[in-house]
Amino acid sequence: MEALLAWWERLCTASKLLRLVDINLRGIGQVMFQNNPLTGLIFFVAIGWGSYAAGMPQVAIAGLVCVIAATLTAHWLHVDEAGLASGLYGYNGYLVGLALGTFLAAGPPLWIYVLLGGAVSVVATMATANMFKTWGVAALTAPFVLVTWLLLLASFAFSAIDAGALGYGAKITAIDPAAANPLNVSAFAQGVLKSISQVFLKGSGLAALLLLAGLAVSSLAAAAFALLGAIVAVITAHVLGAESELITGGLLGFSPVLTAVALGAVFYRPSARVVVYTLVGTVFTVIVQGAMNVALTPFAIPTLTGPFVLASWLFLLPRQHFE
Amino acid sequence: MEALLAWWERLCTASKLLRLVDINLRGIGQVMFQNNPLTGLIFFVAIGWGSYAAGMPQVAIAGLVCVIAATLTAHWLHVDEAGLASGLYGYNGYLVGLALGTFLAAGPPLWIYVLLGGAVSVVATMATANMFKTWGVAALTAPFVLVTWLLLLASFAFSAIDAGALGYGAKITAIDPAAANPLNVSAFAQGVLKSISQVFLKGSGLAALLLLAGLAVSSLAAAAFALLGAIVAVITAHVLGAESELITGGLLGFSPVLTAVALGAVFYRPSARVVVYTLVGTVFTVIVQGAMNVALTPFAIPTLTGPFVLASWLFLLPRQHFE
Amino acid sequence: MEALLAWWERLCTASKLLRLVDINLRGIGQVMFQNNPLTGLIFFVAIGWGSYAAGMPQVAIAGLVCVIAATLTAHWLHVDEAGLASGLYGYNGYLVGLALGTFLAAGPPLWIYVLLGGAVSVVATMATANMFKTWGVAALTAPFVLVTWLLLLASFAFSAIDAGALGYGAKITAIDPAAANPLNVSAFAQGVLKSISQVFLKGSGLAALLLLAGLAVSSLAAAAFALLGAIVAVITAHVLGAESELITGGLLGFSPVLTAVALGAVFYRPSARVVVYTLVGTVFTVIVQGAMNVALTPFAIPTLTGPFVLASWLFLLPRQHFE
Repeated sequence: MEALLAWWERLCTASKLLRLVDINLRGIGQVMFQNNPLTGLIFFVAIGWGSYAAGMPQVAIAGLVCVIAATLTAHWLHVDEAGLASGLYGYNGYLVGLALGTFLAAGPPLWIYVLLGGAVSVVATMATANMFKTWGVAALTAPFVLVTWLLLLASFAFSAIDAGALGYGAKITAIDPAAANPLNVSAFAQGVLKSISQVFLKGSGLAALLLLAGLAVSSLAAAAFALLGAIVAVITAHVLGAESELITGGLLGFSPVLTAVALGAVFYRPSARVVVYTLVGTVFTVIVQGAMNVALTPFAIPTLTGPFVLASWLFLLPRQHFE
Repeated sequence: MEALLAWWERLCTASKLLRLVDINLRGIGQVMFQNNPLTGLIFFVAIGWGSYAAGMPQVAIAGLVCVIAATLTAHWLHVDEAGLASGLYGYNGYLVGLALGTFLAAGPPLWIYVLLGGAVSVVATMATANMFKTWGVAALTAPFVLVTWLLLLASFAFSAIDAGALGYGAKITAIDPAAANPLNVSAFAQGVLKSISQVFLKGSGLAALLLLAGLAVSSLAAAAFALLGAIVAVITAHVLGAESELITGGLLGFSPVLTAVALGAVFYRPSARVVVYTLVGTVFTVIVQGAMNVALTPFAIPTLTGPFVLASWLFLLPRQHFE
Repeated sequence: MEALLAWWERLCTASKLLRLVDINLRGIGQVMFQNNPLTGLIFFVAIGWGSYAAGMPQVAIAGLVCVIAATLTAHWLHVDEAGLASGLYGYNGYLVGLALGTFLAAGPPLWIYVLLGGAVSVVATMATANMFKTWGVAALTAPFVLVTWLLLLASFAFSAIDAGALGYGAKITAIDPAAANPLNVSAFAQGVLKSISQVFLKGSGLAALLLLAGLAVSSLAAAAFALLGAIVAVITAHVLGAESELITGGLLGFSPVLTAVALGAVFYRPSARVVVYTLVGTVFTVIVQGAMNVALTPFAIPTLTGPFVLASWLFLLPRQHFE
């Protein structure tokens, strides 16, 4: 693995085009905090397969176009070299592209949105990073969430943008207890895997296995915490009586997966206390996911990874105290 | 009084268990900014009585369990000793417990929520305090408001949590002018007293008198500003034509009471200018209370002390300028 | 021009009353970032005419009363001399007054609201400026937006305040494509001009021309970017298929106009890169305007200049990086 990455690094040093490929792959890898082009490549293949299998190839293409737009914008804005080279200005753009491709109808207006979203995702990344470095905390996927929420909300106001897939604003009511069925083993396994693939807005078991593999080549700890986070999320959601269909679709677990990786394998130095802290944070992210699902009901937009951002900021802001 | 507190302090120095009792009592006292175990004890008795009289003893118990969970979590997270000893990691937990006990049905899931809420309230306190110390401003009850809002919103998504008492999301409309009746003297007095007891989510005149007594043993100024804030709030709300039932129940006055104590007797050095500034802040808090009651209508959750937090931050953030 | 301003400055040095007039005129000019009493005077005349022509003279009067209340409050709170003298504590108050006069029915409660709003706008300005100076970014019109949103939301809760003009909360749905008609030349020109006058909540072509003149006497660049911003906004909104009536009324363009002036002519040093950056920011402000129109539908309050504040903060926060 080391030799492979060293060979690739030599190629990139010799070619500007390959360096651009490298930066974009690292950007895709950074969606799960990995500064590793091989991880990015495996993620890219996983999402490509997931999009193709779902009959929506435009999702993977929109992600690709958007991450490239973000990388070029970041270059044009002279962002810091180290951050750019490690993909930190790309992962939000990649997610913006995937989300727009998922929720909006294909057509020329989608691609205007994708290019604009990619460019603005870099501005939002610089803005958020500048604010939160005050407290030693990373921007996480807040720029993706903010820019995509605005673009999706605006789609209701603009007739050229077809957001029929989002439905309309609705009244908040309690869920029907009958919707919380017991989970059998197959449903449990599906919920766990799709919680991982939904980090990239895909409900696909195969994509999830590829994503875990991509994580593992870069960091075994990250892969372990992703899997642990998914298991904890599915159990927590089920114990609390959440809607079974949401659990099985991975829609209550993707934010907890990210929280588990962020707290357990990225931002804190490992210790028994950090593992317990991460578990509490992961459980709480399930609650934040439930809360934001409810809170956004009148607005007809998805939470995206908003629950991960909110819960992880909450559990990362005391960080300066621990260290 | 001094002798009594000195005797108690000697007891606590000798016993770890009594020290724990002391920290929790101070945490309860800090709901109204008092680092005083006797104040905390009187508050605790007032809330216990109010809960018992309302036929909801679980409210007082939930508050107690939650503040202890918070204190133990804070100890486990090695928070700063001085803050822990003076109850600064407890008051948000106490309020989380009271709110969960008030709005959710009793049963095992409530107690999971209470324990989790108590633990997360400490994380939220550390996070908020870290952010707002940038501007020399305290966390106030923001951690309580944030954590409880998330837990209550999530209850709509989880069938194991029964939040029937919250009702459902509704459309925003103007109030019926007929609901704003003239207040007679008894309604006025009730509104003033319950504005004080609603700081702890209780509508009880006797509890309010006990709370005033608890404040007075620690700080006469705090007791005076609490009473003044309640009177100003009831008059302002009535002049603006607010719903009489809300005024009489103290539901438009508890945030202004906290603003009045915070601005008038805690964070600013007393002067004629500060008194006028506090009055303007108190009147404005009534407006923020009205605004948040309206804004949260579609979400079916109560404002809690959100209006106090927003208005007081607004009036405290210029603080570095005054000093 | 120079001689005129020098003569006026000598008069103000000699008279406290004229100095007060000067500060308030500069406050009005600062709505579009101009520290220039002549600009303020022309703006004041433009708004006066627009209010009179619309049969709502109380709007202009409310603006005047509110900016004076703000200036006197700022004086009483001993804000920094330089900021006070250049009108930085007045422009939010002026806008609060215009907005309250526009959306609330005339009568004694309106004037209580105007005086309170003017006073609190200064507190909110101090609070916001204190927070955002951490990142080298100005408060913009955030204090106006926050204070007015709270006052308007509260009006639904208070029967003495008649906000019938706001309507009621509604469900979010997609717009009817039929509402996005082709624009003819006259509608285009109207949309451009009213985008400028709606910065002051007025839909008037003549007021817009006066406002451009007022800008030009202080800064030709500001006038040019205001016009450019309006043109870009109208084209963008039309291409995206926005409701024609909103475009023609200037209601999708006033925030982009402010973004264009702020990014292009005030906060960044001019360069080709800044012009492109400003254009992207202006286009994105149209999207934020659409998004906030949608997001506020359930709350029945107008966006005010919220889209300008959000988009401009996003595009200004990376500023420390550029410089």
